[in-house]
Amino acid sequence: MNKSPLTPFALEAYLADRKRDVEEHLFASLPAAETQPAILAEAMRHAVLSGGKRLRPILCLAAAEAAGGSAADACCAATAVELLHTYTLVHDDLPCMDNDLLRRGQPTVHARYGEAVAVLTGDALQTLAFEVLASTPERRTGTVARLVKELAAAAGAAGVIAGQVEDIRYAAAPTRAVIDFVFQHKTADLFKAACRLGAIAAGGDDDTAVDRLARFADGLGFAFQIVDDLLDAQEALADGTPELSCLAVMPADAARDWARSLTAQAVDALDGLPGETAPLAALADRLLTRII
Amino acid sequence: MNKSPLTPFALEAYLADRKRDVEEHLFASLPAAETQPAILAEAMRHAVLSGGKRLRPILCLAAAEAAGGSAADACCAATAVELLHTYTLVHDDLPCMDNDLLRRGQPTVHARYGEAVAVLTGDALQTLAFEVLASTPERRTGTVARLVKELAAAAGAAGVIAGQVEDIRYAAAPTRAVIDFVFQHKTADLFKAACRLGAIAAGGDDDTAVDRLARFADGLGFAFQIVDDLLDAQEALADGTPELSCLAVMPADAARDWARSLTAQAVDALDGLPGETAPLAALADRLLTRII
Repeated sequence: MNKSPLTPFALEAYLADRKRDVEEHLFASLPAAETQPAILAEAMRHAVLSGGKRLRPILCLAAAEAAGGSAADACCAATAVELLHTYTLVHDDLPCMDNDLLRRGQPTVHARYGEAVAVLTGDALQTLAFEVLASTPERRTGTVARLVKELAAAAGAAGVIAGQVEDIRYAAAPTRAVIDFVFQHKTADLFKAACRLGAIAAGGDDDTAVDRLARFADGLGFAFQIVDDLLDAQEALADGTPELSCLAVMPADAARDWARSLTAQAVDALDGLPGETAPLAALADRLLTRII
Repeated sequence: MNKSPLTPFALEAYLADRKRDVEEHLFASLPAAETQPAILAEAMRHAVLSGGKRLRPILCLAAAEAAGGSAADACCAATAVELLHTYTLVHDDLPCMDNDLLRRGQPTVHARYGEAVAVLTGDALQTLAFEVLASTPERRTGTVARLVKELAAAAGAAGVIAGQVEDIRYAAAPTRAVIDFVFQHKTADLFKAACRLGAIAAGGDDDTAVDRLARFADGLGFAFQIVDDLLDAQEALADGTPELSCLAVMPADAARDWARSLTAQAVDALDGLPGETAPLAALADRLLTRII
């Protein structure tokens, strides 16, 4: 990992700034509190505005810059990616899925508003993601069409939802092939879409920007999920249903090595991009250091 | 209702032809049966290919023609509207909503594949709707962006989902205001989107085509829902949870008059459209004659 600039990149300040920007855009995209029915507007706001690292939208904005454009180009795409991610969390928390009552220290949507409202809140957040994405300014004819197709492909039956189906089915006893499938689709596909959408919205070229950022995000998504499994194991969560973990098919040392190697490859993929890559490289290092 | 052509329009043959076209496009849009995970591909096919009148996509195609374009212009939009409608049915049937075990004589998705898969199947059908819609050929820059925004606005937290939230909350004891709200959003908003999307995809002008077709579809959507309530009352369904009905706030005669008057106004709105309106007028008459 020899990509670190001589002057260390001020990642914490960068992330705090970007998080604030993302949250302003999320807030503005949501139905006003007085919208009818009030319970739906309230549940959507609860789901979206209850914290989170905003990692995916920050990746989307940073990818736009790395592709040679500006973060402003990707602001609708970043908002859409986070709305999409939030809808998956609301539905994953449902009693028929993970049955989680708390997320980030707050009651989950179904715990607070009931199951029916939680299903509909997730549905409405997915719809809103595509509505916001379609407001991206079109630098070229076909940009919005491509953004919508890319996000839908990543989020749909061949992407995130495929990953979630297999996660539920094999959580208790995964094989290595299941781990690879779930990590790819449930996690890496949306990381990859975040970076691809940012690059496309910024007018990035496929060869020099979109594909490189996709390789970066793919590796990062896998590494993120491996690190998550290592952290979950350290916390030794005793309660709840068993969660799919790569530690079911490999020892912790092997998982650490896997995450390190994927992160190094991801950072290598940033070579040759036309814009600023220091934030993405620093972010990749930071995600990894959570386990070091 | 003096719009009927001298030669009566052959509606049955028209509907059968269009239904076949719509189902071919739906079939082609779905994941192949061998797609992994197989249970998701199978559940999506079960939900989409288990029959139905295909009324909304047929309206979309007919609207494209009434706006002066061809049905082919609107084929992605029509497919998207039906996928969107199907996702709402899959989620409405869930145990936490209407808890229906049968739809069109077949087990519902949750009854056959379990609740978790049903939630994810509905999610994937919504995603697919936007993916297919984004494949609409762009006659003008911004067409796809507008189509996505229009469908999302109709389907989202200010449209169909708002209607469904209020339907669930007030099914047992609706007021007239609730009836108007639910009929508008749960039913008419998607009828309206079907016609608007068809007209926009066909390059229709806002004043002369899109808005007129929207007025037609709005009236038709209300009339359709009133007729549905009248038919449900005739069938005297004894089982199941109470369903929201306009007959809770008006006698059957008043409901029939309301449906007749809305249909007449809807057909009037077709005046002055640049293309063929006979199928839409005939369809409006047919929906009404179900109660005469």
